[in-house]
Amino acid sequence: MNSSSLIAPLIRRATFFPLLTTTTSPLKRQFHYTYPAMTEKLKPAARVSGNRQDVWSIINSAAAASPIQPIINMGQGFFGYNPPKFILDAAKNSLDRVECNQYSPTKGRPRLLKALASAYSPHWGRPLNPETEITVTTGANEGMLSAFMAFIEPGDEVIVFEPFFDQYISNIQMPGGKIVYVPMHPPEEGKNKTLSAGEWKIDFDQLRKAITPRTKMLVLNTPHNPVGKVYSKEELQKIAELCLEHKIIILSDEVYDRLYYVPFTRIATLSPEVEKITLTVGSAGKNFYATGWRVGWLIGPPELIQYVSAAHTRICYSSVSPLQEACAIGFEQADQENFWQETINDMAAKMSKFNAIWDELGIPYSQPEGGYFVMANFNKVEMPKDYPFPEHVKNRARDFKLAWFLIQELGVAAIPPSEFYTDENAYIVEDYLRFAVCKPDEVLEDAKERLRGLKKYLRED
Amino acid sequence: MNSSSLIAPLIRRATFFPLLTTTTSPLKRQFHYTYPAMTEKLKPAARVSGNRQDVWSIINSAAAASPIQPIINMGQGFFGYNPPKFILDAAKNSLDRVECNQYSPTKGRPRLLKALASAYSPHWGRPLNPETEITVTTGANEGMLSAFMAFIEPGDEVIVFEPFFDQYISNIQMPGGKIVYVPMHPPEEGKNKTLSAGEWKIDFDQLRKAITPRTKMLVLNTPHNPVGKVYSKEELQKIAELCLEHKIIILSDEVYDRLYYVPFTRIATLSPEVEKITLTVGSAGKNFYATGWRVGWLIGPPELIQYVSAAHTRICYSSVSPLQEACAIGFEQADQENFWQETINDMAAKMSKFNAIWDELGIPYSQPEGGYFVMANFNKVEMPKDYPFPEHVKNRARDFKLAWFLIQELGVAAIPPSEFYTDENAYIVEDYLRFAVCKPDEVLEDAKERLRGLKKYLRED
Repeated sequence: MNSSSLIAPLIRRATFFPLLTTTTSPLKRQFHYTYPAMTEKLKPAARVSGNRQDVWSIINSAAAASPIQPIINMGQGFFGYNPPKFILDAAKNSLDRVECNQYSPTKGRPRLLKALASAYSPHWGRPLNPETEITVTTGANEGMLSAFMAFIEPGDEVIVFEPFFDQYISNIQMPGGKIVYVPMHPPEEGKNKTLSAGEWKIDFDQLRKAITPRTKMLVLNTPHNPVGKVYSKEELQKIAELCLEHKIIILSDEVYDRLYYVPFTRIATLSPEVEKITLTVGSAGKNFYATGWRVGWLIGPPELIQYVSAAHTRICYSSVSPLQEACAIGFEQADQENFWQETINDMAAKMSKFNAIWDELGIPYSQPEGGYFVMANFNKVEMPKDYPFPEHVKNRARDFKLAWFLIQELGVAAIPPSEFYTDENAYIVEDYLRFAVCKPDEVLEDAKERLRGLKKYLRED
Repeated sequence: MNSSSLIAPLIRRATFFPLLTTTTSPLKRQFHYTYPAMTEKLKPAARVSGNRQDVWSIINSAAAASPIQPIINMGQGFFGYNPPKFILDAAKNSLDRVECNQYSPTKGRPRLLKALASAYSPHWGRPLNPETEITVTTGANEGMLSAFMAFIEPGDEVIVFEPFFDQYISNIQMPGGKIVYVPMHPPEEGKNKTLSAGEWKIDFDQLRKAITPRTKMLVLNTPHNPVGKVYSKEELQKIAELCLEHKIIILSDEVYDRLYYVPFTRIATLSPEVEKITLTVGSAGKNFYATGWRVGWLIGPPELIQYVSAAHTRICYSSVSPLQEACAIGFEQADQENFWQETINDMAAKMSKFNAIWDELGIPYSQPEGGYFVMANFNKVEMPKDYPFPEHVKNRARDFKLAWFLIQELGVAAIPPSEFYTDENAYIVEDYLRFAVCKPDEVLEDAKERLRGLKKYLRED
């Protein structure tokens, strides 16, 4: 060991700004320093260190703890069946092509961009430019994160309606955005009778009051998860007017845009002015029954899309190539396969088939106008007073208890929607549970059979 | 129109905190307010609004402007051939399975996690726990972003060696991190003779000086892109000691971990202490010749991995399912297919075949120890003094001019590595160009034939 390596550690310690510990003696202080403890230095950032259990892990732990196995999972919105054959074939063929296995352009494969432009231009009423008005993302989720990363500076405010898709929240917080919540209200009579999901309403006075000079974006979701509401043209016009007046970017999550059972209006298409401030989000996962494919897109004016695209490049670089190509072919062939009409017919049939159980039991629900979720109102369901809920369920709203109870007693998993409200507003949906009907018909029948077990818990009115 | 809709706009304006314009008259001020202009309110966040042209768009514009068409693209590191058949077959079979087309668990498909644990355990010298020590991400890129999002708070510092992979920079900046650069230095004699890429060195004094109490992470890349260096065990030990002393998390980008032509040490495996502070990044895209598949992973201690996983969930939710399943099968079968040995043999053969052109021309290069890039030193290449470079190339370092010149005159695209240095240190690599050899043999031969055109521009020594 030479002399320089002997003295190096001393020099190092003196040079590299060791943290002084707080002591009162100046003499001691001169020599008494330390480095931060290992655990302190390795600690995670605040954005990931929250530790309240999310709804998915609560439902999973409930399922694992249930005496009834296996559970019928009507909770999470994944499809219980495959994408159509013409799209699977397209994916398999793409895997044989060298260029479809390598990086795609960060904005998306040209063929997919062109297919999206062709598919959406009729809705927009004019030809969309595939190069400047559309960008492909790694699923709609990363697409929305890209939009927030593109426009939100720390302290900017984003208006989100409750119930919200839970990923919105962390995606807004990541770039430092502040969420301003505006609750949707179910119809008062929803406790007693089945009404259209369209009866869930925003209070426009509450919305107006939520706007401040820092409001940068508003997140819309139509058809709505979990409510099943399709916003009416009149409602969209009121929202759009407010956003135009206050120069707020509308981020319209329309991932269920091929599943509507009443007329569906895309907010971007209300007027050229509204289009200028709107980013519309779409999802191949939802369109083609392939939630695991992670292909999504945003449509909007070039002045907005270019920055979404830049943010996406920084987040994921590019998106999955062979499945982008398959989605391109999916869009190219969907009309000749009559796929879009079939998808509506099939899901509407599943809705009717499944919801028959609520009619049979006399449990009211919100009749969905779109999407594949139904919200049933369990106000009439009475759980035993001394039912042994675990600690992490006991302190949540009644819908969490209902969900736990349903899994333990009947072996059916549903999602408690108060997870998608702030604590303050959780009471609004404490009687509701969300069921996903995008499952094979035999699963729906099995679930209905199990749900008949609710009869003995129904309050007589 | 009723009276309330007539007065509503006034109330709204008064209620929603309009921004006051600066005027001197208090009277005027009382009534004179305005809303921010549309362009001001819709402007992008600083993180995406930079507008210096990146190297990829410069090279693409050069290619488009070249009189020689088509260009031979030796620039970007995508493979010019397909993944092996056993992996493509696995992908196609996965597409027929319902669960492989739907959401995967956010941490990754259990089969892939298990396959990764089996594949990496021998390198770690102990069994890795697939549930707690590995997390799957949407490519290595989003994996690294997840790591930065997991640990970087605004103002935290991250040490990055130059040349860096360009995505590191925006990925560190996104959570508010500050990058502290430490340059790698090529050997002085690299101008005149071919030496091992291992001769590119870090100055450890510079590294020590770069450390401050805010240093939270250090990014390592071995085998190194673009240099082709495989860090020696001794170098890794010195880096690890510094990181242990200062409690710095090591993020080791080892995406080229199956392509090494000298002994390769994984820094995490130096000691149990080093393992505790190390996150190792891997890539199916690089391992299986499928850069467009977007499947990556991180390996590390549970105390770190859990937060990477939490960040990944917030960024992308989950990663592409059918290709995760294919990668699982790829890892399961790689040994029996002798794939890992073949991949080294094949790439080493491409390296020799391609680099023969430099030997032939007398152009020195850094003999790669790993990866699929080679850095050639064009010090001897003299471009005509009055060569008409476009404005956006003229103001960059000499390597940008070399890259432009090569595309225009010979129709071969390479990457100028000063893009991967700070402006201050760009001079260090101004004579180098990076070539990717992961191309079919016939492409390599065509490129060599075109590069023979350099002869007339070589300075006689």
